[in-house]
Amino acid sequence: METILSTQNNRVKEWEKLKTKKGRKKTGMYIIEGRHLVNEVLQNEADVVYVVATQDELDEIKFDVPEDLLVIVSDKIADRLSDTVTTQGIFAIVRIPNKERQIQDPDSDVTGAWLLLDNIQDPGNIGTMVRTADAAGFQGVIFGKGTADIFNPKIQRAMQGSQFHIRLVLGNLEEWIKSFKTANIPVFGTELNPQAKSYKDIDTTDDFALIMGNEGNGMSQELLSQTTANLYIPIKGQAESLNVAVAAGILMFSLRNI
Amino acid sequence: METILSTQNNRVKEWEKLKTKKGRKKTGMYIIEGRHLVNEVLQNEADVVYVVATQDELDEIKFDVPEDLLVIVSDKIADRLSDTVTTQGIFAIVRIPNKERQIQDPDSDVTGAWLLLDNIQDPGNIGTMVRTADAAGFQGVIFGKGTADIFNPKIQRAMQGSQFHIRLVLGNLEEWIKSFKTANIPVFGTELNPQAKSYKDIDTTDDFALIMGNEGNGMSQELLSQTTANLYIPIKGQAESLNVAVAAGILMFSLRNI
Repeated sequence: METILSTQNNRVKEWEKLKTKKGRKKTGMYIIEGRHLVNEVLQNEADVVYVVATQDELDEIKFDVPEDLLVIVSDKIADRLSDTVTTQGIFAIVRIPNKERQIQDPDSDVTGAWLLLDNIQDPGNIGTMVRTADAAGFQGVIFGKGTADIFNPKIQRAMQGSQFHIRLVLGNLEEWIKSFKTANIPVFGTELNPQAKSYKDIDTTDDFALIMGNEGNGMSQELLSQTTANLYIPIKGQAESLNVAVAAGILMFSLRNI
Repeated sequence: METILSTQNNRVKEWEKLKTKKGRKKTGMYIIEGRHLVNEVLQNEADVVYVVATQDELDEIKFDVPEDLLVIVSDKIADRLSDTVTTQGIFAIVRIPNKERQIQDPDSDVTGAWLLLDNIQDPGNIGTMVRTADAAGFQGVIFGKGTADIFNPKIQRAMQGSQFHIRLVLGNLEEWIKSFKTANIPVFGTELNPQAKSYKDIDTTDDFALIMGNEGNGMSQELLSQTTANLYIPIKGQAESLNVAVAAGILMFSLRNI
């Protein structure tokens, strides 16, 4: 166990940089925040380098932190590292597994339900969709081109531990779509187009891929043309659209055979 | 049309305070931000007192602003008034109708689908639920005790115009529940309890009330005991729960006869 009290400490500065994609790329590490997540990461195989906490928070938590990982810091340092308005004051610095820093080839024997994210931007939306995919019993979520970084601290927080329950993959969506089709698994795109097929007309199933698109512009035309069918959620009122995480939740729970 | 360039101007200070509940209570006004919302508020009956915009934004927008409402401000003032990271630089200052500042009695002849919010805190969740209720063709949303303020700028923004499409009511949920029951309209509570009734076992219908509860603690026990039935969304994976706005979306679209 060691103690750091200066915000000028080099490691503190390095950890703070893990909030940025550049900082994570340079060091190959990421930072997660909060009691629940730190507890989950310690219980999983993830490669935890440090657990950083204030003394007050350490007195509060109900789980053990291995002595050799622990760094005690001041409240001021905790505020610096935090990505929330009021921090609980506990963080883990975790090594990103090498394969998860690279685009992964599709599984050759892919099965189950998968969520594919095409150019989705908002960390809260992405984290919420991963959490919902977990709750709906999905195999995993594939982060396609333009989608925000898996290791973004806001996404990590919004996933609420689901990042340790299901597979998260950085992938080329076109390649994955091909592999689903080869395995005879239907691939459903989504579009804000009443001409598309209503999701209510699709029978529930265990194996399928669902693609959600960008908050403002929807899915790319290229991907829309490669799906088995493109789905639409009928809108009854005057709202122009649904929030993407809400739409994903409606579709995942409606399509999956739960 | 007038121009204000000093951040020390008294009206600017007053408008800035509309971001707080105290400031809204004192003046009876609220502030909304962004092109889309300002356009919607001008097209609706809402009592707009000022439209505040930067010259750059004014050159950009495609709709007319009545000359006598318009106040041009500096970028610095726009930043002060804004509740976003990068502001578009346009706002409306709107009078809160008297009845909407007070708890409203239930409709005597209530019909349709209604969403009831019991002690919900997060502005993004609340705004998203209102937007989803609009899309699902609901009559309105009733803000119960402990639920964040309807005129909070973050809620107004997340509603994306749905505040002008459906009824938003400050209400005593117990009184409203009684009035639904008198009208023979089922009232569905929600709880994170596999002992409760699965939402999949409920037939779709046009008239019902759905209650969503606090993000951390769920609905109050008192209200749970007053419903027609309490519903549960079966969870298949290892996630402990769903985001409340996602859960509300799944339930609204599944229960409503769309």
